[in-house]
Amino acid sequence: MMRVKLTFSFDGSNYFGSQKQLNKITIQSVLENALKSIYKTDVSLVFSGRTDSGVSAICQVAHFDCEKIIGKLTGRLNSVLPKDIRIISDEVVDDNFHARFNAKQKTYQYNFYISNTPIPYYDRFALRINENVNIDKMMMECNSFLGEHDFTSFSGKTEVENKVRNISQCGINNCGYGLYSFMVTGNGFLYNMVRIMVGTLIDIGGGIIKYGVKDILNSLDRTRAGKTVSAVGLVLLGIKYE
Amino acid sequence: MMRVKLTFSFDGSNYFGSQKQLNKITIQSVLENALKSIYKTDVSLVFSGRTDSGVSAICQVAHFDCEKIIGKLTGRLNSVLPKDIRIISDEVVDDNFHARFNAKQKTYQYNFYISNTPIPYYDRFALRINENVNIDKMMMECNSFLGEHDFTSFSGKTEVENKVRNISQCGINNCGYGLYSFMVTGNGFLYNMVRIMVGTLIDIGGGIIKYGVKDILNSLDRTRAGKTVSAVGLVLLGIKYE
Repeated sequence: MMRVKLTFSFDGSNYFGSQKQLNKITIQSVLENALKSIYKTDVSLVFSGRTDSGVSAICQVAHFDCEKIIGKLTGRLNSVLPKDIRIISDEVVDDNFHARFNAKQKTYQYNFYISNTPIPYYDRFALRINENVNIDKMMMECNSFLGEHDFTSFSGKTEVENKVRNISQCGINNCGYGLYSFMVTGNGFLYNMVRIMVGTLIDIGGGIIKYGVKDILNSLDRTRAGKTVSAVGLVLLGIKYE
Repeated sequence: MMRVKLTFSFDGSNYFGSQKQLNKITIQSVLENALKSIYKTDVSLVFSGRTDSGVSAICQVAHFDCEKIIGKLTGRLNSVLPKDIRIISDEVVDDNFHARFNAKQKTYQYNFYISNTPIPYYDRFALRINENVNIDKMMMECNSFLGEHDFTSFSGKTEVENKVRNISQCGINNCGYGLYSFMVTGNGFLYNMVRIMVGTLIDIGGGIIKYGVKDILNSLDRTRAGKTVSAVGLVLLGIKYE
């Protein structure tokens, strides 16, 4: 038995998320089918973590176990995979490597644009928010996410018990012409966490939420935070392993 | 008779460019049909300039002449237009206003990413170039475009005689995670000019072209410049009028 680490990239527009679901096309099901066609046996992938329906990844990681070495696996997989999923690399790793448990850091991006009118080109990859938003306030509030906190207020329904996460980088870049990207790096993220963080910043910037991120974190109350924004702007940029 | 200035935005993916062509769906034909359905007569649009097949615009401008004022024209047009074309504003302007002749400055963006493997998410809006490229050299060479030059070497086939253009801003932004955007502002652009500028920078960065942008400008010879890159990365960001 040996363990293989797969690094890959995908446009999630046409998939029901990464995780395997009955009768739905997901990144995991398409990848596992491709692996099965090459290994001629069932292969189970363990992802670094799941991504929601519609979310894309510049760089995602998964591992699987198998009995034999297949030469040029990356190329073989790419020849059977659809164009919106591309393998970047495959490598045999130590049996102790675990795509989820060994992930030390993940970085997400969430794109949005500020405009009272839809900008169709931006709608391909970004969420629109109205011009009455205070972007400076949103930028400032990002700092309150930094450090170790219990993110219960920023979590969708999950069975994960420990909701403490450490955010090492968080900010909003002004890309010009109304476009912005929220960037966040942490040691892990809860279900819907990035989308709730962005929804909360938008509601604070728009004056719908009158208190700050710190108050919401301290409350440990999901109802104090903002809405879960659409997946359209969300991209997993990368994962760091030890 | 009065003149109306339309400001609009579009995702060009599904159109054969902006300019009207027989039996092809273009931005101009769709807009003119929408105007006809409202004004109940033929309306001719004059664009600030044409954009190629597949090119998008954050902000494009056109004008037309009509006999009567239509209230809430922006809203009415948006209700009949497809979602990938959105009117931002309409305003009655002086009869001397001309969308093309009065345009003083245009800004284009061209997105590309550096990777030996396709990144499907970036493929939505950017051109892929291989990792053997010298991005620092490309960034440096952008400076040679600045100022007033005869851009004969950087023009596709055109009947325009005066090929002198003034470039006031030109550079490449590093957006992180392999993504870059080339940004250029000038008083006007020749046919395919931005795409040839980018193709030339890529060929210089990749060592395929051994001389610099200055030499190519001076040669007044299209064959000295690089290839015309795909429209996938090109976006018209905005136009300034006096």
